[in-house]
Amino acid sequence: MALIVQKFGGTSVANIERIRNVATKVKKELDLGNQVAVVVSAMSGVTNQLVAYVQELSPLTSAAAWAEYDQVVSSGEQVTSGLLALCLHEMGIPARSFSGWQMPLISDSAHGKARISSIEAEAMHKVLNSGQVAVVAGFQGMTPEGRVSTLGRGGSDTSAVALAAALKADRCDIYTDVDGVYTTDPRIVEGARKLDKITYEEMLELASLGAKVLQTRSVEMAMNHGVMVQVLTSFADKPGTLLVKEEEIVEHKRITGIAYSRDEARITLTQVANIPGMSAALFGPLADANINVDMIVQNVTEDSGATDITFTVPKADLEHALKAVQGVKSTLKYKSMHTDRNVAKVSIVGVGMRSHAGIAQTMFKTLAEKNINILVISTSEIKVSVLISEDYTELAVRALHAAFELEKA
Amino acid sequence: MALIVQKFGGTSVANIERIRNVATKVKKELDLGNQVAVVVSAMSGVTNQLVAYVQELSPLTSAAAWAEYDQVVSSGEQVTSGLLALCLHEMGIPARSFSGWQMPLISDSAHGKARISSIEAEAMHKVLNSGQVAVVAGFQGMTPEGRVSTLGRGGSDTSAVALAAALKADRCDIYTDVDGVYTTDPRIVEGARKLDKITYEEMLELASLGAKVLQTRSVEMAMNHGVMVQVLTSFADKPGTLLVKEEEIVEHKRITGIAYSRDEARITLTQVANIPGMSAALFGPLADANINVDMIVQNVTEDSGATDITFTVPKADLEHALKAVQGVKSTLKYKSMHTDRNVAKVSIVGVGMRSHAGIAQTMFKTLAEKNINILVISTSEIKVSVLISEDYTELAVRALHAAFELEKA
Repeated sequence: MALIVQKFGGTSVANIERIRNVATKVKKELDLGNQVAVVVSAMSGVTNQLVAYVQELSPLTSAAAWAEYDQVVSSGEQVTSGLLALCLHEMGIPARSFSGWQMPLISDSAHGKARISSIEAEAMHKVLNSGQVAVVAGFQGMTPEGRVSTLGRGGSDTSAVALAAALKADRCDIYTDVDGVYTTDPRIVEGARKLDKITYEEMLELASLGAKVLQTRSVEMAMNHGVMVQVLTSFADKPGTLLVKEEEIVEHKRITGIAYSRDEARITLTQVANIPGMSAALFGPLADANINVDMIVQNVTEDSGATDITFTVPKADLEHALKAVQGVKSTLKYKSMHTDRNVAKVSIVGVGMRSHAGIAQTMFKTLAEKNINILVISTSEIKVSVLISEDYTELAVRALHAAFELEKA
Repeated sequence: MALIVQKFGGTSVANIERIRNVATKVKKELDLGNQVAVVVSAMSGVTNQLVAYVQELSPLTSAAAWAEYDQVVSSGEQVTSGLLALCLHEMGIPARSFSGWQMPLISDSAHGKARISSIEAEAMHKVLNSGQVAVVAGFQGMTPEGRVSTLGRGGSDTSAVALAAALKADRCDIYTDVDGVYTTDPRIVEGARKLDKITYEEMLELASLGAKVLQTRSVEMAMNHGVMVQVLTSFADKPGTLLVKEEEIVEHKRITGIAYSRDEARITLTQVANIPGMSAALFGPLADANINVDMIVQNVTEDSGATDITFTVPKADLEHALKAVQGVKSTLKYKSMHTDRNVAKVSIVGVGMRSHAGIAQTMFKTLAEKNINILVISTSEIKVSVLISEDYTELAVRALHAAFELEKA
């Protein structure tokens, strides 16, 4: 007998008919003799409506306001947990719902983006051992002060993986509206291929690069706790993509997938005084403003000792970033500041890079052949990212997908 | 400094604009130097939507199903509590929301219609004494098992009065979409007059007779705990109707108000064996089926010792009632069973009846003058009810309102 955690996203529980469909997925696991704990998101659209109410009332600038945000937006998952438990019950399957505070799932007090501290696994095991299905409202927990917390958008994935880790579940199935992880976005490349397996590390790079199948934190957590995660669709009956350790994939291709993101903007400062502590003076204030700086390039351009610095920030944070940089102009003594919103980041990802040479070179050559200018390059052990003009995003992704022969299994 | 409990119904918090309006009502009490605890309903329409979801999934025939019903439908009040707290917060007024389990308001485990066992007043006083407004999600509590309970439709009134009783509040203001309690339904009688004061007993009769301003249980509770309740509108700035003890009204008119209900159906059994235990044999099974029998008349019609029995049940329960009666036909040995859905109950209510003679006679004479046939009569100390053909409801109410001169202050 295995213990399976299933997680169903908003589109999978969007209406009563789909909740019935979800119940049949639960039943299927039970029929295999397994214990099942289910984590549910809010019906799609509900959380957005609740967030809109909150934003109409408040700019959310205080902790007290965020606490009320959590009180409001956590209600959507509470509703689906009750509805699914009811649906199972009517199918003759003993089930009961749990809100975050009922498990309890204890988090810290960072309302709106709380981190999980602990999950009471014993109580949950007791429910499962009694033959019941536990239906857990995702995305939420309780702070040590007894307030409701939420885990940030997409937090239901994190709830599910955390629950699977706490229960030492055999597998965590994340049901969503796509049927797995693809070599790249199938809307852009017709030949995009579903992967049977992918390593946690690769998934992490793809998730953080904008392939929004799984929330980054949930992948990190799965990797850290060795939770076997499967991403699959609730709208068909077929296996999805398994997240596994590197050694569980026998032969790695040169690269596994291609991701892209249009969410970044570029900032360039020219002729910055190249003195010790300059980077700290620049990026410290950005970090303080909670702005996530991604790619950074620095070139000494002249004998003067001055340097040009280019970096990227999320488009949504551009205005804040400019303000933060202007605040330290007297320290940095840069000559001019340029910004560019019309950029996209394209990345190739794969653990195979470690053992194959010439990967980056193939990437640059492919883009050059299409006359695509590379603005910034950044690399990690299993990833090469380039910043290009946004207009060439699709062209670049298609050309790279073909160059690395990702359409072939 | 007084402590005021304010309760706002669904239409008062139907959208963000109205929630802002509610916040100004709270501020007004604070500006008078008072402490304020607020109880809110769900935004109007929300609870109905949630109930519809639940009913689409389940006939709600088990306690486990009702527990999930509560998990689902309690979410509406949770949302408004957070939104109002947020709105107050943005106005510079310290406030925090409370779900039922957070206060906690402990109830029994009768899911869907739970009874309040206790409210933790100390914690709430602490919040109020710290200068915060407590914004409480109405309609809900927590069972001893740690599940969410709800108090039945209209339960937010009960939450508010119970909170006022627990906090020993100076007044409980129930804001609704009508501006007070009227001598009768103003939609039927143009001259219907708003009452400045009404006794608990009279309100109880009016509430249970279908004047749906306040939930019956909340009036009972206010009476038992001596909570001064005011019914008023959130859409204007004027006093409403005060619920008070009988001795606080100096001069009572003959009657205070006229209520009507179209929610009942009549059942008549002819030639029932008139033997000891017959009533128990008939009404026992109805009670077991949770059917609320209201008016009962029994007439011995023949020398045979057989009797005709007429009684009324809620229209919604008629089918169930007929089944229950047919189940004991062999015991009752009645000759025939007749049902009539086309009936209405019209009642005159007033503590003045106790000291004025001839009230019932005036009622019967007034109806006779309009050629309205009385099918059943029932009386209490402060009420006379008659069952008539539903077609004459408005005519009867208007004629009685005029006969008792209720349009005059």
